[in-house]
Amino acid sequence: MQVSRPVTPRRVVISRVYPEIDRGRYPVKRVVGESLTVQADIFADGHDRISAVLDWRQGDGTWQEVPMIFLENDRWQAEILVPTPGRFTYRIRGWVDPYQTWRAHVHSFLAADLEISAVVWMEGITRVLEVAGSVPSRRVSRLLREWTDRFAEPNDVPQALRQLDTLMHDIAAIPHAPTQYPDGEPGLPLWVDPVDAQYTSWYELFPRSAGSQPGLHGTLNDVIKRLPYIADMGFSVVYVPPIHPIGESFRKGRRNAKAAQPGDPGSPWAIGGDAGGHMAIHPELGTFDDFDRLVGTARDLGLSIALDLAFQCSPDHPWVREHPEWFRIRPDGSIQFAENPPKKYEDIVPFDFECESWQSLWEALYGVVEFWIGHGVRYFRVDNPHTKSLYFWEWLIDQVKQEHPEVVFLAEAFTRPAVMQHLAKVGFSQSYTYFTWRNSASELRQYVQELVSAPVVDYFRPSFWPNTPDILPQSLQEGGQAGFVTRLILAATLSASYGIYGPVFELMVATPAMTPGEEYEDSEKYRIANWDWECQDSLAPLITQVNQFRRHHPALANNRSIRFHAVDNDQLLAYSKASLEGDDVVLMVVNMDYRYRQSGFVTLSLQDLGIAPDEDFVVSDALTGSRYVWHGPRNYVELDPLKQSAHLFSVNPKS
Amino acid sequence: MQVSRPVTPRRVVISRVYPEIDRGRYPVKRVVGESLTVQADIFADGHDRISAVLDWRQGDGTWQEVPMIFLENDRWQAEILVPTPGRFTYRIRGWVDPYQTWRAHVHSFLAADLEISAVVWMEGITRVLEVAGSVPSRRVSRLLREWTDRFAEPNDVPQALRQLDTLMHDIAAIPHAPTQYPDGEPGLPLWVDPVDAQYTSWYELFPRSAGSQPGLHGTLNDVIKRLPYIADMGFSVVYVPPIHPIGESFRKGRRNAKAAQPGDPGSPWAIGGDAGGHMAIHPELGTFDDFDRLVGTARDLGLSIALDLAFQCSPDHPWVREHPEWFRIRPDGSIQFAENPPKKYEDIVPFDFECESWQSLWEALYGVVEFWIGHGVRYFRVDNPHTKSLYFWEWLIDQVKQEHPEVVFLAEAFTRPAVMQHLAKVGFSQSYTYFTWRNSASELRQYVQELVSAPVVDYFRPSFWPNTPDILPQSLQEGGQAGFVTRLILAATLSASYGIYGPVFELMVATPAMTPGEEYEDSEKYRIANWDWECQDSLAPLITQVNQFRRHHPALANNRSIRFHAVDNDQLLAYSKASLEGDDVVLMVVNMDYRYRQSGFVTLSLQDLGIAPDEDFVVSDALTGSRYVWHGPRNYVELDPLKQSAHLFSVNPKS
Repeated sequence: MQVSRPVTPRRVVISRVYPEIDRGRYPVKRVVGESLTVQADIFADGHDRISAVLDWRQGDGTWQEVPMIFLENDRWQAEILVPTPGRFTYRIRGWVDPYQTWRAHVHSFLAADLEISAVVWMEGITRVLEVAGSVPSRRVSRLLREWTDRFAEPNDVPQALRQLDTLMHDIAAIPHAPTQYPDGEPGLPLWVDPVDAQYTSWYELFPRSAGSQPGLHGTLNDVIKRLPYIADMGFSVVYVPPIHPIGESFRKGRRNAKAAQPGDPGSPWAIGGDAGGHMAIHPELGTFDDFDRLVGTARDLGLSIALDLAFQCSPDHPWVREHPEWFRIRPDGSIQFAENPPKKYEDIVPFDFECESWQSLWEALYGVVEFWIGHGVRYFRVDNPHTKSLYFWEWLIDQVKQEHPEVVFLAEAFTRPAVMQHLAKVGFSQSYTYFTWRNSASELRQYVQELVSAPVVDYFRPSFWPNTPDILPQSLQEGGQAGFVTRLILAATLSASYGIYGPVFELMVATPAMTPGEEYEDSEKYRIANWDWECQDSLAPLITQVNQFRRHHPALANNRSIRFHAVDNDQLLAYSKASLEGDDVVLMVVNMDYRYRQSGFVTLSLQDLGIAPDEDFVVSDALTGSRYVWHGPRNYVELDPLKQSAHLFSVNPKS
Repeated sequence: MQVSRPVTPRRVVISRVYPEIDRGRYPVKRVVGESLTVQADIFADGHDRISAVLDWRQGDGTWQEVPMIFLENDRWQAEILVPTPGRFTYRIRGWVDPYQTWRAHVHSFLAADLEISAVVWMEGITRVLEVAGSVPSRRVSRLLREWTDRFAEPNDVPQALRQLDTLMHDIAAIPHAPTQYPDGEPGLPLWVDPVDAQYTSWYELFPRSAGSQPGLHGTLNDVIKRLPYIADMGFSVVYVPPIHPIGESFRKGRRNAKAAQPGDPGSPWAIGGDAGGHMAIHPELGTFDDFDRLVGTARDLGLSIALDLAFQCSPDHPWVREHPEWFRIRPDGSIQFAENPPKKYEDIVPFDFECESWQSLWEALYGVVEFWIGHGVRYFRVDNPHTKSLYFWEWLIDQVKQEHPEVVFLAEAFTRPAVMQHLAKVGFSQSYTYFTWRNSASELRQYVQELVSAPVVDYFRPSFWPNTPDILPQSLQEGGQAGFVTRLILAATLSASYGIYGPVFELMVATPAMTPGEEYEDSEKYRIANWDWECQDSLAPLITQVNQFRRHHPALANNRSIRFHAVDNDQLLAYSKASLEGDDVVLMVVNMDYRYRQSGFVTLSLQDLGIAPDEDFVVSDALTGSRYVWHGPRNYVELDPLKQSAHLFSVNPKS
């Protein structure tokens, strides 16, 4: 008989663990203050009692142990509160618990009113000894001897059990070699970010258009002067497109003309020229002193500066000369520019992420990130990450976060779902989304529900943008002021992170380069613009109100709590969010029709609002100050886009 | 800067692989003749073309390669037909394909009507060289040289591309180190069973009740005489409860009486006595010669003999004396019998699967299985597997199947869902189910849909039993003849494997020991019964018809194809199955009401029946011979349980 020797007498099985991303290949994400609730099916053969613990630790620190609690139907759960940003590991251990099995056995005797014989008591002691065997101590031995003397055949069964329980509690050891999940692995990874990795309001502007004199190239100092305006609106991050020297060769002209005219500044994404590359500042914008002052002033105003990581070069980038091995050289000796026939991007040369010298390339790009972190930057908006190796990002972000767990990476990838989700898996803190093209109430409901479903919600953090320099969507082209207002409110309240590209957003710039199309007419990408920042009709006051609503309500800092409520009018979208502690609840009702008044009855899930079925409750609108006393689930709403596109309600019991 | 050197320039990602059970921890199951269709999300950064293959091999044999086909939205697929029973492995490899990328690039030039410059052609040659580099050969070099000479700047572009395609096809090499899934593992396991591991009709009988003289202990020779009766009814497997010597100590009496009376035969599950243990035959049943003849006669009739693996002992089992180390010894020196207070099973002593000598115990039990395989047994019904270590079963079944891939294990576990499913994961070929207690149309629909959903359908093969020696369900106690007929038809057509415990089933024995309760009155488990096998009212003729329907229709040999069709009467259940090739389709309509006529309109999903929307089709009832010509999805059905409880239709286009 050809038989492989069996290798384990284990009995406990651990499966269907939640959360885990691809069985631990990628980390689950949380932010500080959130809990990690871990569930698993844990069971063994037969009727013996089992016990299980959730172990967790930060980095390579000491394991901490939390008992898992039995829910029902072989499901167990434990919860931990993750205290600080960084890399954590968790695992589950489960084992057949001989003492608890014996305890349950004794209870079944008691329940059946049967006498507990001496041999049963002796078995209890044996179980204790089995467990104690793994932690032999003089104290345990003494206790056991005492216990044996007094209770070998006890008169007072409950007292005897209490004593034995205390003894077992004191020993507190895991008896047999437990089953561990994951098996043979260090554990499941958990990445904890600072709160603002999930909860961010972004404001994007072009520094060269930040000046106040028409035609004059704006500077970092001009941006510094705009900071109070941005801070007053309530944003948390100021994101600037690339601030590096711009190439001269094949520079694009205004309106993406193939040839630049004298004075045309070129696209900031064509990085690198005589003045340097990714670690230099465009001379017309200013100096490193200016930049450091920008970061410092922003910090004083409660703002963070976000840079653009656009890992590509203009043909004039110093690296093109110094490191031709990082680029794809064509058979004729020329360097391959970006091309997607018939489109040509002659002003941009991509890196070859799998060139023979890929390791030195990857390390040089890592150096870029470290360089700017050294200048106080901790937010990076990453340009087109889906066109660079996904394995590169995984390595890069991991490297950066080991030293700087507070750094936030936003993935600007508008591509296929699998690729967008994978970028989040490999480490991006936040991701651009399809929000920009989801317009109807039902589309938005479905999309948001997809984003907050497991496992996506455990690694993908959306950032909702009504516009970007590349995208002036249909909704803004045609929606008029109501369109801007509605898209702003949706972005700011559906998603814990959102952003706008200004000041064109608050100034409601809505003319496309051509129709149909989503490019801005005479885009800032290719020129210096001059805006009327103080314009009377600006949406700045409304934006301020919306950001204040976000700041006053911790409910809006998470995505997981979102609940949609039924409305009998499909032009109305109703949804609520609650804070982690459940003590802050907000309810939004948005009219998706930019032209006409819409009304209807919303049927609220009162439980999700923390309201009892028979309780009066007050909804207070942050935009108008109106208060309504409601009762029961069905309530009337009416919204006229010419006056008010949405209710932003806080919800409180009346009492 | 503290930076870990990046380790891979890979670009392709492979995820969401289907099927896989717990990321390859347990094997996916198929039977011979079924295909394995593997899907995965496969993608890379950017716009480069990728290619992927599915590799598979039997045992440690040579890998075979099947190209994966792009479906849509980053989803790829390949299909293999698994030829023989045994252990297989499959894996996916994907890579960026430089030649196909270049090919697509050229096509975009052609589509935009742009000229293809010499440098582009040279790049094509470079790509070929890159690939050919991994398979350098004189032939390839010669072809390349030729090609370069002739097509460096070709006039006939399509011809040039054709030539280059042929060249690449000849080289047929995988260029870069591809991404492999699973990574760093030998592959995902696949277990292929013989067809009858999924498609079985079981008939259970007690050999000691197989005789024809009242009060006389039946023998294996009596069972041999019953075989034609069972074969004529159309069953494929005859399963007999344990045939080993039965213990005397604490033997149970009739009706589970605590003490046996003289002449009481005891429970066959109290295995072991003076005449031996698990590798002996109860002397009153016969000899090994008789047993071998039983197996041989059965085989000649197209039947298989299934034995019961009940891994437990009577106190008189030789192993209790010879191997006390395999049992739990209590502190007073006695051996622990089975107990679940207040119930006591003094006639049964369980093994301690985690005793110190567990390895020798496990190997001895493996020896039992090998012993009976040596006597021609390849079906085992396993008694209460959920009360023995799940790791033991995983090891045991794996060992057995390595030598004997044709062996079938049926898990008799009626316990919690997670445990029942896990037994299937660790290797059981078939499993008892909750069918026995699912009575309404909606309950059955929901339960079957659960069983045929991924991933359960990929490892769990149900066996539906209307009754067992332990279970006389409510439906049979109260349903009268219609109850028996209906439960038989449901079991035989909802599940590819089913079984009955006879002859009490066909004789419609329906009296419980007590009400409420599911024990048979005066159960065969504790006595020798004498049955009127030839009874006029027996359901044997109907069972014959149902099994003939199963044999004539390959559609009924699988579970995966089942589709439920809407009926406007919730007492009617309509479902269809199709053969793997789709050329055999059957439709069942069952009246779940055992008393009253029920009628209604069924709304058929014609596509699932292989019928065009505007096509006449014929449904022919195998029970009555009636034929109906139907048209369109909505059709009237009417079933009177006093005459006919179900339609067993074959479905064919009229033409």
